[in-house]
Amino acid sequence: MLKLFPLTTKISNGHITIGGCDTTELAAGFGTPLYIFDETTLRSKCAEYREAFEKRYPDSVISYACKAYLNRALAQIFDQEGLSLDVVSGGELAIARAAGFPMERVHFNGNNKSRQDLDLAIECGIGRIIVDNFYEISLLDRIAGEADVQQEILLRISPGIDPHTHAHLTTGNVDSKFGFPMTQAEEAIAAAMSCSSLNPVGLHFHIGSQIFDLTPYIQAINAVMDFADVMRAKYNFNLQELSTGGGLGIAYSSESVPPTVGDFADTITVTVTERCASLGFELPKLIVEPGRSIIGQAGVALYTVGAIKDIEGVRKYVSVDGGMSDNIRPSLYDAKYEAMVANKAEKHPAVEFERITIAGKYCESGDILIKDIDLPKVEPGDLIAVPCCGAYCLSMASNYNAALKPAIVLVKDGNARLIRRRETYEDLTSCDTV
Amino acid sequence: MLKLFPLTTKISNGHITIGGCDTTELAAGFGTPLYIFDETTLRSKCAEYREAFEKRYPDSVISYACKAYLNRALAQIFDQEGLSLDVVSGGELAIARAAGFPMERVHFNGNNKSRQDLDLAIECGIGRIIVDNFYEISLLDRIAGEADVQQEILLRISPGIDPHTHAHLTTGNVDSKFGFPMTQAEEAIAAAMSCSSLNPVGLHFHIGSQIFDLTPYIQAINAVMDFADVMRAKYNFNLQELSTGGGLGIAYSSESVPPTVGDFADTITVTVTERCASLGFELPKLIVEPGRSIIGQAGVALYTVGAIKDIEGVRKYVSVDGGMSDNIRPSLYDAKYEAMVANKAEKHPAVEFERITIAGKYCESGDILIKDIDLPKVEPGDLIAVPCCGAYCLSMASNYNAALKPAIVLVKDGNARLIRRRETYEDLTSCDTV
Repeated sequence: MLKLFPLTTKISNGHITIGGCDTTELAAGFGTPLYIFDETTLRSKCAEYREAFEKRYPDSVISYACKAYLNRALAQIFDQEGLSLDVVSGGELAIARAAGFPMERVHFNGNNKSRQDLDLAIECGIGRIIVDNFYEISLLDRIAGEADVQQEILLRISPGIDPHTHAHLTTGNVDSKFGFPMTQAEEAIAAAMSCSSLNPVGLHFHIGSQIFDLTPYIQAINAVMDFADVMRAKYNFNLQELSTGGGLGIAYSSESVPPTVGDFADTITVTVTERCASLGFELPKLIVEPGRSIIGQAGVALYTVGAIKDIEGVRKYVSVDGGMSDNIRPSLYDAKYEAMVANKAEKHPAVEFERITIAGKYCESGDILIKDIDLPKVEPGDLIAVPCCGAYCLSMASNYNAALKPAIVLVKDGNARLIRRRETYEDLTSCDTV
Repeated sequence: MLKLFPLTTKISNGHITIGGCDTTELAAGFGTPLYIFDETTLRSKCAEYREAFEKRYPDSVISYACKAYLNRALAQIFDQEGLSLDVVSGGELAIARAAGFPMERVHFNGNNKSRQDLDLAIECGIGRIIVDNFYEISLLDRIAGEADVQQEILLRISPGIDPHTHAHLTTGNVDSKFGFPMTQAEEAIAAAMSCSSLNPVGLHFHIGSQIFDLTPYIQAINAVMDFADVMRAKYNFNLQELSTGGGLGIAYSSESVPPTVGDFADTITVTVTERCASLGFELPKLIVEPGRSIIGQAGVALYTVGAIKDIEGVRKYVSVDGGMSDNIRPSLYDAKYEAMVANKAEKHPAVEFERITIAGKYCESGDILIKDIDLPKVEPGDLIAVPCCGAYCLSMASNYNAALKPAIVLVKDGNARLIRRRETYEDLTSCDTV
């Protein structure tokens, strides 16, 4: 179980410590629900990706998929670690800019970028725009032209590959809102190459999220490179850059064994290298866009137990002070989490375990964080720590039931730094104009 | 289709108008995505509820369930209409207070109220607290005692009734995180009556949401009143107030025919009146907590069409500038919506219809607002109006993909008043502390 937590996680005097910080002291100091990000884990994952790709494929770029979660402090860490950023909106771009992130290392994805999104991207001098559709080709060409910019773009191809994951997370199959379907990809190349303000330097695909089976990557790379080969012949299209997107899955349960970053890098780089050899391509710059597999394990959600309801013969509900407003994944994807009692973490025979269901505090029956988990017996005031909460929790957080979005601390070497303050009641009405 | 829209909706020169305001002008003036609330519909629904209950049951209270959606301007309207407010968090309470809503007309629900929630409630002089569990009984008694307050409470009973709706929305069955199960309700009465700072004046239940079949209300009322009868005999418990919760469904599709407010009022009031007669009770004050059926129809979401992707033989995707960040219900509950093209609303034989899928702009395949709808052929820049978006859209809105939460206008008699400004890029980092 502990292996789902950040790399620095230890048990000391029965308490979970992360980055050298006792979680009970973090709760006392910052309140709960609290999101704890472990700087060591985050930087290690960045380095692991960087090194895994660099040693196999020197001309590679790790572009963090910000949609997993981004704020200013995290953007600065990614900058220091030499990563690029994959943003999907003007908003994410604005956060990166506010953090001082170098704009030439920002890539812009998305199926429906607005005029405002693209205006901001051009104004910022963004590195790459991954163009998704014909409307965007002409809109971006016009905007770039007005700004007298020659914009480097990649074209997003939907290679028609099913990654065998949750239907909500499948993005590269034929029936998808994302990218140019193979049947329209040639027309897209021709259109983009004919635009005076666009410079199509490569191709992009992204087949989905939380993927454990790497075979679809091989299929997608081969399909897209074969397509590039035809485009080379027909249009003299030069594949200088290839983005294979993100999607590597992580373990949310102790039994789960996802591919390692090394496995992932092997699959991607070997496939690209071999296909280049067989097609007579020079190796393109290779871009990968991991999100969850960079930040997922680094984040832990910490909650305080409140009401406990033992419905005899039915279920014991333990309610905590967060839930679907800070983590909607159990409701939205039926996602499964594990947890520990942060202040009762020592395993010894005297500890009485019991089966409970951890409920959130929001007024909806679907607001269940974990159904049926065996934990040491808890009382009000105990702390529940949920691992693997770095990705797609805070990024999807709402103010449902007028909940205040949680505080976030970054921990390292026994120091905890508040990187996002908890929202206040005043924040709830700050946009109200009456 | 038009009947799903607010009561004042008309078509004029091919444009949808709401509250006398042309939606194309609203889009031009306030941008999109825009949420439009029709003041006339909202006030009519309040009046309809008030009158339906008052004429059948004079001592009745309509308490708007804020979780459907609340902001300051709306709270002021509910105040003017004589409604009470049902809040479920300190945050909702704070919004009501910021709007100057009379605190004695506020009721506080929720399965896990925190110390901070209850402190605020007592400090505000809240009218009623609906106590959910034993932990809350003792916590609230202590807090009220410290403040030297005698707090009037209702006890929430989980009557073990299945309302035959979406599992996420079922709140009154035996296996529920909400309320005292029947097997523990007697102990709850005894405990609450023995608390020196609590005055248990009644009982509460809430069986669920988006309910079309009224029979479960009859079952629940009878179950709870029979229980009250036993408590009267055993503990001299006096049922001065009874809350039957909310849950009346609304139509999201043209074919759907929910019960009317009159049907709902009939069912509730006749059942309570008859059971009181048969048990020899004086009629208690009757509280109902409608949310969606007050505000759902009043709200319309307005989006602008961007990229259009026609995948031949598969699907035509029309992407709009909002989606799951402002309305997560299609992803979360598989909720179905209808829509109109706000600037092509005139029906005439020359209009070419086509089947499209309306996608959001967020980086997730689940971000589909409406799958397979027949609409007049659209182009980029056209406006899509989605009715029935007053409830559980903005209240659950997130900043996923760093989306900016939409602006809201209140329309009436040709005037549009901005009641919530659109978020800005600066808002996204306003809590970041780096």
